[in-house]
Amino acid sequence: MQGTPQPTQPTPPAEGYAPTARTVPTRSRERAAYDRELVHAILDEAYVCHLGFVRDGAPVVLPTLYGRVGERLYLHGSTGSRPLRMAGAADPGLPVCVTVTHVDGLVLARSAFHHSVNYRSVVVHGVAHPVTDAEEKRAALDALVDHVAPGRAADSRPANAKELAATAVLRLDLREVSAKLRTGGVSDEPEDLSLPHWAGVIPVRREYGAPVAEADLSPGVELPGYLAEL
Amino acid sequence: MQGTPQPTQPTPPAEGYAPTARTVPTRSRERAAYDRELVHAILDEAYVCHLGFVRDGAPVVLPTLYGRVGERLYLHGSTGSRPLRMAGAADPGLPVCVTVTHVDGLVLARSAFHHSVNYRSVVVHGVAHPVTDAEEKRAALDALVDHVAPGRAADSRPANAKELAATAVLRLDLREVSAKLRTGGVSDEPEDLSLPHWAGVIPVRREYGAPVAEADLSPGVELPGYLAEL
Repeated sequence: MQGTPQPTQPTPPAEGYAPTARTVPTRSRERAAYDRELVHAILDEAYVCHLGFVRDGAPVVLPTLYGRVGERLYLHGSTGSRPLRMAGAADPGLPVCVTVTHVDGLVLARSAFHHSVNYRSVVVHGVAHPVTDAEEKRAALDALVDHVAPGRAADSRPANAKELAATAVLRLDLREVSAKLRTGGVSDEPEDLSLPHWAGVIPVRREYGAPVAEADLSPGVELPGYLAEL
Repeated sequence: MQGTPQPTQPTPPAEGYAPTARTVPTRSRERAAYDRELVHAILDEAYVCHLGFVRDGAPVVLPTLYGRVGERLYLHGSTGSRPLRMAGAADPGLPVCVTVTHVDGLVLARSAFHHSVNYRSVVVHGVAHPVTDAEEKRAALDALVDHVAPGRAADSRPANAKELAATAVLRLDLREVSAKLRTGGVSDEPEDLSLPHWAGVIPVRREYGAPVAEADLSPGVELPGYLAEL
């Protein structure tokens, strides 16, 4: 927007993202947040986002791997996939909405009406552009791999020219961004508190199982520390 | 579509959903599936879907609670929320895309290019309609609550008339539906197999923590069995 080359990062907002008409919810406004560190933390904890775009006038939502570099998301795809082809064909880019959600707990109220989940989500609105610069693409792919397992990019064979050409990456600046959260316990009506139903929160979290090594690893290759730590 | 009242279920497809231009992926077609039982299983294992719709020509993707009754999804919202208001105002309904994704494993290849995740996702295209029939709305809300914890709807106070009026529910028939899956191990290039990098799959799963009861439960109320089983 400032006439600088595209790989230049957007200026990080000093404290948070400026709310816009699209990022102020019509309901539960108290759950909305624009804090930059909170947004980054929610984004960095997931691997898969839900990428929304419009095709022939209808919405499409696809799960996609992503990474973050500063104030920029990189979305991964194949050069043959629809959103990537559309972003490449579209000028000036593909309008998208990228959403990341963590479910943190089941909120079981005495009343059916007050059942809910504790969650943290981030919604990013913007225009995605295909990454064409080879260096930026390499850095984006490193970020994508390190997003899944920090330290992994340096411990794998980098993409070669053919693989880079077969991989499409979309760039989306973090400008119009909001987080939304529900935390805490149950909010039942006062007159329901004496009902004979259990009420409370059941925490939900992501767990990793024991790593399953490929059968044909090179002799002597052990599970690296950064994966054992997951 | 047959002139019958809206609560009538769409006819379940005998084996699977018929592929359409929108549900046949341009890439990795071998990962697509249209089997009805598989689609139901993926839908029933999650609580939160990502609901996509178009607003002022731009895509919006929001996390939303949902339930399934036969060949129909019910999406939960407030009567004041944007998609619900839009669906009520729009005739004949709101074009949506609803996507549900489970991440089952991190796939760590020797090459950066072949990194992936194992996942199961379902994408539903269609037109959502607000549920206006009181009985259908009640059944939908029961399905939503039981979707989070089977057995819970019968063990909570049902919504009263005021709560029913404040709750909006969208109905989306399962007609244009596809699943997509990646399972199994690493797919490295033959020439990479001797590289000194660990390769394999780290399973990812959802775990429940110990239930946290509200401090003001009625005396003698214990955690019910259907919640202890989670």
